[in-house]
Amino acid sequence: MSELSGQISVPFKVMEWIGDAESGYLRLLDQTALPGEMTFLDCRDHQAVRSAIRKLVVRGAPAIGVAGGYGMVLAAQNIPDGEDFLSALEEAGEYLGSSRPTAVNLSWAVRRVLDVGRQGGGDIREGMLREARAIDAEDAKLCRAIGKYAAPLIRKNQGILTHCNAGALATAGIGTATAGMYVAAAEGHRFTVYCDETRPLLQGSRLTAWELNQAGIEAVVITDSTAGQVMKENRVGMVITGADRIAANGDVANKIGTYPLAVLSKHHGVPFHVAAPYSTFDLSLKTGREITIEQRAPEEITEGFGKRTAPEGVAAYCPAFDVTPAELITSIITDRGIISPVSEKNLRKMIG
Amino acid sequence: MSELSGQISVPFKVMEWIGDAESGYLRLLDQTALPGEMTFLDCRDHQAVRSAIRKLVVRGAPAIGVAGGYGMVLAAQNIPDGEDFLSALEEAGEYLGSSRPTAVNLSWAVRRVLDVGRQGGGDIREGMLREARAIDAEDAKLCRAIGKYAAPLIRKNQGILTHCNAGALATAGIGTATAGMYVAAAEGHRFTVYCDETRPLLQGSRLTAWELNQAGIEAVVITDSTAGQVMKENRVGMVITGADRIAANGDVANKIGTYPLAVLSKHHGVPFHVAAPYSTFDLSLKTGREITIEQRAPEEITEGFGKRTAPEGVAAYCPAFDVTPAELITSIITDRGIISPVSEKNLRKMIG
Repeated sequence: MSELSGQISVPFKVMEWIGDAESGYLRLLDQTALPGEMTFLDCRDHQAVRSAIRKLVVRGAPAIGVAGGYGMVLAAQNIPDGEDFLSALEEAGEYLGSSRPTAVNLSWAVRRVLDVGRQGGGDIREGMLREARAIDAEDAKLCRAIGKYAAPLIRKNQGILTHCNAGALATAGIGTATAGMYVAAAEGHRFTVYCDETRPLLQGSRLTAWELNQAGIEAVVITDSTAGQVMKENRVGMVITGADRIAANGDVANKIGTYPLAVLSKHHGVPFHVAAPYSTFDLSLKTGREITIEQRAPEEITEGFGKRTAPEGVAAYCPAFDVTPAELITSIITDRGIISPVSEKNLRKMIG
Repeated sequence: MSELSGQISVPFKVMEWIGDAESGYLRLLDQTALPGEMTFLDCRDHQAVRSAIRKLVVRGAPAIGVAGGYGMVLAAQNIPDGEDFLSALEEAGEYLGSSRPTAVNLSWAVRRVLDVGRQGGGDIREGMLREARAIDAEDAKLCRAIGKYAAPLIRKNQGILTHCNAGALATAGIGTATAGMYVAAAEGHRFTVYCDETRPLLQGSRLTAWELNQAGIEAVVITDSTAGQVMKENRVGMVITGADRIAANGDVANKIGTYPLAVLSKHHGVPFHVAAPYSTFDLSLKTGREITIEQRAPEEITEGFGKRTAPEGVAAYCPAFDVTPAELITSIITDRGIISPVSEKNLRKMIG
């Protein structure tokens, strides 16, 4: 049991550092096997962490940030004596940081642990592990803070729609999009969460429905294209998603399918909220146009579930993310408060 | 090879009556096995046809109409001497017609063949088979007519988005949504069709991409929630879908996910077209509110592809269709011409 926010806890650990700075390792809950099995992957070098991030064993912008931080400690462990420690470390940081280009938390966390390595002094690996652990603990705290701001919005709602998994499984805490749900549920409020299954990799049905179910929150799985009908039938009073990167003007990159939800929300007059910690903001980007969109392998669509579902030789287009323009977003719920209306001015006031 | 429209042909037969009226049977291409295998299911009684319709061995509003017509011939074959022929036939019609409640073509075709049975005279079964074959041939003709009207819209487009399968596989001809594509392609025009994979049963990736591929038309499979991004990137100049039932005011029931596409199209200023023969219109319904929406089994979502993709015990909401309001539809392309703008007056003028 992982204690997350006072009485709020989820019965799994997304990741855990086991052992000390010199010879310890990172244990990851293998999210590709959920909801069927709960298995773990032990990473003993930063290459293994990178591979786990690529394969989505660990995923979600905040969680891959935390994993990236620990990955840097593993990199430091494995640099042979005699090699230039700093340049090897920098190279490892580059390598880890590039594993998924859209989520900004990853490069942010890698840089934080790398900076400790650069400063040197004392036991470098010890210091780096301390920093990685600090990022881990801080992430849990950020989630709780988001939950505190989001819960009042959730409480009033009988139906909430979410996309992908911006839950406890995507963070080191109670999630971002789910944070308010966990807080409101702990306060005794009841509501239904419509979970977009989120093709191609089904993080919504496999992960979000699973973790809400574990927490006793009512989850209803829908296909992504059922969201319109669900809104038309007035089943949801709000949409809340996470974010992988937020530009200075409030444009949000998040899992493919977020943008159409925002358009549908506008059409139906349903508030559309994004929940993310300050580390997801990238104020160096003026707008969402500058955000790199990762392309995933077409096989994620055409060979879903271990079976070919499209004819051989047919093309597929598989962007992992889309960008929702700020004007479609009702509010961005951060650990520091709620940005609404979403404008560069309000955003810089909160985050800058 | 099935000759469909002059030189336009597709290399498969969706269904075929084999033998005579007394002892013949209906052979269906099993669409649940596509694109992996091309297998056939022989139906020798109307119960088998109903089961095939329920299981989507044959699907698509026009095709299940045609199958329903042949199913009535099988029903007539199997009524034992001594039983009240007409009431047994009517019961069979009721049973067949109720197999899928949303598509209107089914009950329409069943009624047509039933009426021949009711009139009696001569060899009743012979007459009924003649009527079922007439519906079959007529459907192919309706598709060609739709294609003639749709092709000019298609020709101008480099990118077209479609949902589900309203293709040759959904009809006895060159499809409804695809009819214009086949005609334009036969005329030497080149374009790319973005095929929504169409969860839960993936008719877009399994069937539409497959049949377009067979015909040498470029198909690109996307997840349903990628349509927004595809529009944002200006990859498509139009959307065209089929329909399962169209009310007198022009509201269209079609595969779940059609409505959000229409909302996205409006947001992006992309024309949104629906293609359907006159038999898909149900002028007895004032608006789409009166259309019965079939609910499918939750397992179609949660156990896609023979593998559990959502946790045990979690709920799923699985409407098979949604209703797109007339005001979001640029035009309805029928076998009799194009209805645009879509209004009750224009619709009744064309179809009434």
